[in-house]
Amino acid sequence: MNDGSNSQRKTGLKVVALAGGVGGARLADGLAQALPTQDLTVIVNTGDDFEHLGLSICPDLDTVCYTLAGIANPATGWGRAGETWQAFETLGELGGPTWFRLGDRDLGLNLERTRRLHAGQKLSAITRHFCQAFGIQVVVLPMSDDPLPTWVHTSEGILPFQEYFVHRQCQPKVTGFHFEGAERAHPAPGVLESIRDAELVVICPSNPWVSIDPILGVPGVRQAMLVRPTVAVSPIIGGQALKGPAAKMFAELGLEPSALSVAQHYEGLLSGFILDQTDASQSEQIRKLGIAILATDTIMKSSAKRVELAKEVIEFGSKFASAPPAEYPETKKTPKRQI
Amino acid sequence: MNDGSNSQRKTGLKVVALAGGVGGARLADGLAQALPTQDLTVIVNTGDDFEHLGLSICPDLDTVCYTLAGIANPATGWGRAGETWQAFETLGELGGPTWFRLGDRDLGLNLERTRRLHAGQKLSAITRHFCQAFGIQVVVLPMSDDPLPTWVHTSEGILPFQEYFVHRQCQPKVTGFHFEGAERAHPAPGVLESIRDAELVVICPSNPWVSIDPILGVPGVRQAMLVRPTVAVSPIIGGQALKGPAAKMFAELGLEPSALSVAQHYEGLLSGFILDQTDASQSEQIRKLGIAILATDTIMKSSAKRVELAKEVIEFGSKFASAPPAEYPETKKTPKRQI
Repeated sequence: MNDGSNSQRKTGLKVVALAGGVGGARLADGLAQALPTQDLTVIVNTGDDFEHLGLSICPDLDTVCYTLAGIANPATGWGRAGETWQAFETLGELGGPTWFRLGDRDLGLNLERTRRLHAGQKLSAITRHFCQAFGIQVVVLPMSDDPLPTWVHTSEGILPFQEYFVHRQCQPKVTGFHFEGAERAHPAPGVLESIRDAELVVICPSNPWVSIDPILGVPGVRQAMLVRPTVAVSPIIGGQALKGPAAKMFAELGLEPSALSVAQHYEGLLSGFILDQTDASQSEQIRKLGIAILATDTIMKSSAKRVELAKEVIEFGSKFASAPPAEYPETKKTPKRQI
Repeated sequence: MNDGSNSQRKTGLKVVALAGGVGGARLADGLAQALPTQDLTVIVNTGDDFEHLGLSICPDLDTVCYTLAGIANPATGWGRAGETWQAFETLGELGGPTWFRLGDRDLGLNLERTRRLHAGQKLSAITRHFCQAFGIQVVVLPMSDDPLPTWVHTSEGILPFQEYFVHRQCQPKVTGFHFEGAERAHPAPGVLESIRDAELVVICPSNPWVSIDPILGVPGVRQAMLVRPTVAVSPIIGGQALKGPAAKMFAELGLEPSALSVAQHYEGLLSGFILDQTDASQSEQIRKLGIAILATDTIMKSSAKRVELAKEVIEFGSKFASAPPAEYPETKKTPKRQI
């Protein structure tokens, strides 16, 4: 958590971070600690949001907020520290579905978010309110206030994201994805503005396919990023994802799970790429794509390591950082190929 | 709880009990312990059910079930013993409404009931399932599977029941009630059948206006009761209700809050009436209505006292008890005057 007290020794740099769940949340937390409060905006994937038990659940948004608030469960990365499970234990005893579990405090938040949504409040406004209540000082934005659910195309049919991810534990073989309603969705208030005003955009080490691509799929986001310096941190280390199915997805889509594949995935967007020192041997190939490289220890084992990595990302990224243009060119690029 | 093991020393008598919340639940529990399992059916008020935070909440039904299961909070009478409050504390911290509080385990049950209702299951079927899960052996029936919400007419307008009861803490002055949709509602499966098969109907010491009248307002219930021996236990003791606004309601409606007023309220239905020994002086006036009287200690301070009162009620009621008629007359009585 950034209490603003040490902003004297922080380098000011207007940063926008794109984040999914656990890995993204941890780097976002590092950035929040490394940057002056007013300089960071975190844009969070809402593609894996879903309705369950009548609740509007936003897993990545909550993981980011709990992490920034310092109340995340350090063991799981998701959910809250010191959580209790009375409600879901009872639900299970009564024969209810427990494949997606919510702790009691988490449930309280989800009840209140759902109530506010039903009362007509926007997800972005609700998130702002929750962040205030949690004492989070950086700006956290859902990518969109519109539903934009991720569907996973698999060998066993097209599955809603959480059905694939939690219920089926990523077992079905992936053949592709689509983000329902992406063409009609609007970026949440502040999303495009913060990217346009950013001196640096950081793509956090989240799943490229189901955490970052949904954000890039929101109309205007990719286009706004094309004219801003962007760096990405590889979520693939030594051919593996630290958490989640990113490596499995690359492999099932016929791509080698590697830092290089991640860099290629984001090609056209990146000025720089941060990979783990384990994968330093891939640096040369990535440089050939016209992308600068930083090889370092990217594993955020502790809160201190988050800040350390964040500072390295900022220092590396500041090489490419530039003030936003006074006027934006009317860029109209070919949209990225969808698999 | 009745585990059936002591059914040898129980007097078989087919009893139907009509119950609202805490007082009704406690006598129902006494009856469940005093009667052979198969001989008791409890019909519960659902007039104070309501939708809140997206949940379908059935306060009386849950109070009855938690009490019969031996897991009710002995201090409050409602909710569960040893309950935790993490979800609602969080909801409150985030600015949500906490005037109607649900404990974490209670919340789990409400989530599961709501899920089943949305999936198309009937409240009566869900209640049967929950009773099984809780090890409740007697039959518990909601009065209806149809919504039949109680509205309270007050000096401050017509209020939904829980708005009056919990949110406004019964402060507005009552002028009357109506049970929305009563004319169109159907009794839940088993309700009319159990009354018709009953050798004795017991009206528990619940609020006559907002716990028992809603049950009597379900089409067919009052009519079925007119041909079955019925006794009622007064919820008014020494001019006061042990719990809830019954006495206040009588007074505000221009009636003396007394056991006599309760007996008059149920006039036409009762063969016998059980009042507290404190009110024994009213016995003569009630006898003049053609109603037999039992004056005894009706305060159920302990589980043992519940059983004691239940046994007295059964013994007293069995004087009027009769086998159900082979065929029912086509009675068509004037419906009870609504205030």
